[in-house]
Amino acid sequence: MNFLDKVEERKNEVGNVLVIGLDTNVERLPKGFSKDASGVYQYNKYLIESTRDFACAYKINSAFYEMLGPEGMRTMYKTRELIGDDIPTIYDAKRGDISSTAEAYAKAAFEFYDFDSITLSPYMGSDVAEPFLKYEDKYLFLVCLSTNPSAEDFEYHGNPPLYLQVAVFATSCPQKCGLVVGANVSDYLNEVHEVSPKSLILVPGVGVQGGKVQGVMNSEAREMVLINVSRSIIFANDPRSAAIEYAKELKV
Amino acid sequence: MNFLDKVEERKNEVGNVLVIGLDTNVERLPKGFSKDASGVYQYNKYLIESTRDFACAYKINSAFYEMLGPEGMRTMYKTRELIGDDIPTIYDAKRGDISSTAEAYAKAAFEFYDFDSITLSPYMGSDVAEPFLKYEDKYLFLVCLSTNPSAEDFEYHGNPPLYLQVAVFATSCPQKCGLVVGANVSDYLNEVHEVSPKSLILVPGVGVQGGKVQGVMNSEAREMVLINVSRSIIFANDPRSAAIEYAKELKV
Repeated sequence: MNFLDKVEERKNEVGNVLVIGLDTNVERLPKGFSKDASGVYQYNKYLIESTRDFACAYKINSAFYEMLGPEGMRTMYKTRELIGDDIPTIYDAKRGDISSTAEAYAKAAFEFYDFDSITLSPYMGSDVAEPFLKYEDKYLFLVCLSTNPSAEDFEYHGNPPLYLQVAVFATSCPQKCGLVVGANVSDYLNEVHEVSPKSLILVPGVGVQGGKVQGVMNSEAREMVLINVSRSIIFANDPRSAAIEYAKELKV
Repeated sequence: MNFLDKVEERKNEVGNVLVIGLDTNVERLPKGFSKDASGVYQYNKYLIESTRDFACAYKINSAFYEMLGPEGMRTMYKTRELIGDDIPTIYDAKRGDISSTAEAYAKAAFEFYDFDSITLSPYMGSDVAEPFLKYEDKYLFLVCLSTNPSAEDFEYHGNPPLYLQVAVFATSCPQKCGLVVGANVSDYLNEVHEVSPKSLILVPGVGVQGGKVQGVMNSEAREMVLINVSRSIIFANDPRSAAIEYAKELKV
């Protein structure tokens, strides 16, 4: 089943578009979990078991596993296994390279770890995406507009602005290529959606990063969005309750 | 010792600017090496022992280790150890994220694996670089202009073009921030160097990728360049001889 169908099926099943971001920073694990790769795995297991009956998808943020070295990558592998094949997975890796290097990153993401989709940083052009597009049923999300203060350094550069150029590229592979647009720039969400109406839009920046959910859920892009919440769920006192609250706000 | 001094000292010692790129693709290992992470390590050991008396620096391309999962990362760790602390190391990872995620990538690169420098993909703005700049003695290379056909999709976008905006950012942290400029665009090298004269410029695309060495070595930027050769050395029949030839061409 291709990723778009898998997401659609899961949305129908759980009735929301909540992506739970497993940004499981070892330094922030609660008491009772060892401050190492094994503690991260145990905490992920707890998080997944607490939310798998209603999470629309899981996003695994590579950085928090890489910082723990090979053992961190083993935890990532085991976490991916734990999620299983019925719930869509997003590998948040922002990879951005070309040629045989991009092929190797695609092998890591889609073969070794077997994620359903990946985020990519498009600076070097469409060649960044090319090897990832060859995988049937897999999907990619190009960073388009982000939530950080310095996003305007480059993303808004030029006329038309760079982020719209990225959205235009996404239209050239509509069954395969989505976009990342931060929640605090939801004014731009419709614009990006108009340019590439068949792209899924992954929206981070809800919760801790201060994005507004309602602006997104009321936008014209609402049928194409997946909304990620990471820290506000996984480091809440009661992650399941926090996730349920978000899922309610993100009902479809 | 900071990275610029370390590079300067090494250049004086070996008399060239050759960076050997350990893009050690398991699928291309020669006969006699097992086609797994352990074979990659053994081959890296052979490559490093064959070239460490004259290589100016080593660049490790993360993708080829990541595609082998946790064992690949262990090979990367052991390869880094083997290089030791006297020869400058570049972690070619093209990471590009923000906030706590960028901090975690910096921890992976500069703490766990203890590389001296890293390549970054700047799409999301200067926030991508920020956590890496906090490490004393470490260095980063922002992708500026690359060697691939679709580089023009985004890197040349706008007026002034995006790549010059990236070069301008590099001037804001001259002791810490270099740039990546492909060898086949050496016409642009002087332009980038004029904008950010104190930045080291890492030049990939020599050899297999078809860049012209002489254009780079005769440019006004020549005192700031480090030139990377990967496949044309590491997969040559005789890697040491191939590396010696390149080192002669890259004499300083």
